[in-house]
Amino acid sequence: MAPGAVSGKSKVTIVGSGNWGSVAAKLIASNTFKLHSFHDQVRMWVFEETLPSGEKLSDVINRTNENVKYLPGIKLGKNVIADPDLENAVKDAKMLVFVTPHQFMDGICKKLVGKVNTDVEAISLIKGMKIALEKLSEATVGYRENKDIAETWVQLFTTPYFIVTAVQDVEGIELCGTLKNVVAIAAGLVDGLEMGNNTKAAIMRIGLKEMKALSKLLFSSVKDSTFFESCGVADLITTCLGGRNRKVAEAFAKSGGKRSFDDLEAEMLQGQKLQGVLTAKEVYEVLSHRGWLELFPLFATVHEISIGHLPSSAIVKYSEHKPKSSLVCKL
Amino acid sequence: MAPGAVSGKSKVTIVGSGNWGSVAAKLIASNTFKLHSFHDQVRMWVFEETLPSGEKLSDVINRTNENVKYLPGIKLGKNVIADPDLENAVKDAKMLVFVTPHQFMDGICKKLVGKVNTDVEAISLIKGMKIALEKLSEATVGYRENKDIAETWVQLFTTPYFIVTAVQDVEGIELCGTLKNVVAIAAGLVDGLEMGNNTKAAIMRIGLKEMKALSKLLFSSVKDSTFFESCGVADLITTCLGGRNRKVAEAFAKSGGKRSFDDLEAEMLQGQKLQGVLTAKEVYEVLSHRGWLELFPLFATVHEISIGHLPSSAIVKYSEHKPKSSLVCKL
Repeated sequence: MAPGAVSGKSKVTIVGSGNWGSVAAKLIASNTFKLHSFHDQVRMWVFEETLPSGEKLSDVINRTNENVKYLPGIKLGKNVIADPDLENAVKDAKMLVFVTPHQFMDGICKKLVGKVNTDVEAISLIKGMKIALEKLSEATVGYRENKDIAETWVQLFTTPYFIVTAVQDVEGIELCGTLKNVVAIAAGLVDGLEMGNNTKAAIMRIGLKEMKALSKLLFSSVKDSTFFESCGVADLITTCLGGRNRKVAEAFAKSGGKRSFDDLEAEMLQGQKLQGVLTAKEVYEVLSHRGWLELFPLFATVHEISIGHLPSSAIVKYSEHKPKSSLVCKL
Repeated sequence: MAPGAVSGKSKVTIVGSGNWGSVAAKLIASNTFKLHSFHDQVRMWVFEETLPSGEKLSDVINRTNENVKYLPGIKLGKNVIADPDLENAVKDAKMLVFVTPHQFMDGICKKLVGKVNTDVEAISLIKGMKIALEKLSEATVGYRENKDIAETWVQLFTTPYFIVTAVQDVEGIELCGTLKNVVAIAAGLVDGLEMGNNTKAAIMRIGLKEMKALSKLLFSSVKDSTFFESCGVADLITTCLGGRNRKVAEAFAKSGGKRSFDDLEAEMLQGQKLQGVLTAKEVYEVLSHRGWLELFPLFATVHEISIGHLPSSAIVKYSEHKPKSSLVCKL
């Protein structure tokens, strides 16, 4: 019998127990309970805290089946076991689901060396989704070679209200996740300028096209179809309708350039960083270095607006450069 | 010298002078004025009316350069000539732009037989766009064979605030324009159920995927790339953010099934018809006839909700059928 498998059943451990970690635990536990190929019990590693009541968070979760601190009011399922001991939590696991804040990953991975099964599979959930209330939502699982492993992960996450798709395009998925934040800045500027839905939709579409074109220039393996997946058009729409990048960019445009992104970020995001502005800067450097600036007028313009070189209204004017960007149209 | 060409310059006539016809005239006149290959003057056929002042509409347009009835406050350009005589307006024209209400097209075309140049080119602008205020907007020109003709039309329409692209996929473009209204119904239901942006984005993406899959099943010539054009993702976003289909569907869901679409349409649209519900019915018939219902759960569900066979909340539940719709995922 392989380690981590009891009667051939895969054991799953969630590494992390914040809001999204708890959501993942709830969702996965409902599946392991139903599906024969998984072990019923799901372990969730909890970074231990003492609650105001004096109780330990892990004890309360195990007693109430509820993460009262990070996902109050939602039952996780009786087969979710909170465990404050990382090493014990991952022992025997066949599948690890990482849902800790990004900055803790390095430290956690170092602690796991030699403590996990050699054939363990792992997935990283970088972004949060509000699906605990069982509203329909979606996600994409990226994979390189092994479709069967990807499909096992899809099985583990899929529920009637959470549609998960496996896509063989890791780079495409990651670039979607990054570049959409630049487009969200552009969409927020349009909102701030009060230019209406037609203009916003045009900017979102042009942004999607630049996302696709840049991804394909950087990695020839990137597929068009990835941009039709939830990581592409759906995440882009979500980010451009809500989302902090959109919100701060709207305030920036409304201020008429009087306030900087740094300033608004500090005021509006309580310490969270504005991904889109940082990404726009990095993208600009890549484009500039490779001589591609004219091929990506939207990405370039977002950066130039964000550093105050262009007014917000420039976001709807770069289309004058269109003839130069025929490459983008073809990609 | 070819008829309709003065020193080789193409003469353009706008057939129609309503709101969108006037917008088209303004936009085209600014281009013919700048571009050497077009005759400066743009004729606009006006269905003559007598204004409350007693003046003829065409006279007022020619005196003020403004369509005071259908596009007040916007200067059309001095090179737009209003002409109430259809035959005279199209005489010598090399390019005709049709922007009359759909129901008048038959009658107008009959009147034009034998009155236009044999090599005349024509384009039909079916839907309106609010670009007269020079907000950035987009459109797609569909063509079958002749790319040069398509590019001439693109030249005629393109301005810094109006991005026009030629796409060799007439069927794809037309199906985008039709099917997006069904998706807008779905999006409106999500709005009415107050399920949030994540869910709405998921529904829009699934809708886009069904639009693409159905178009490709119906016409093998349809291209994936068409759905990245403004007629695809951008129009879909616009329609799902604003638009009457979305609005009435939202009211339908909010009423909890107590009011019918017919009822709400009569109350909310003042005689305009709800395209999405009609289209959903037609699509349902096609799907049913061809045995494809299970491949298109979103389209099918919209119809079943609209006729009261399913509650509005079914719009986020059809994902349970997902395994059956693998064809859609591949297309």
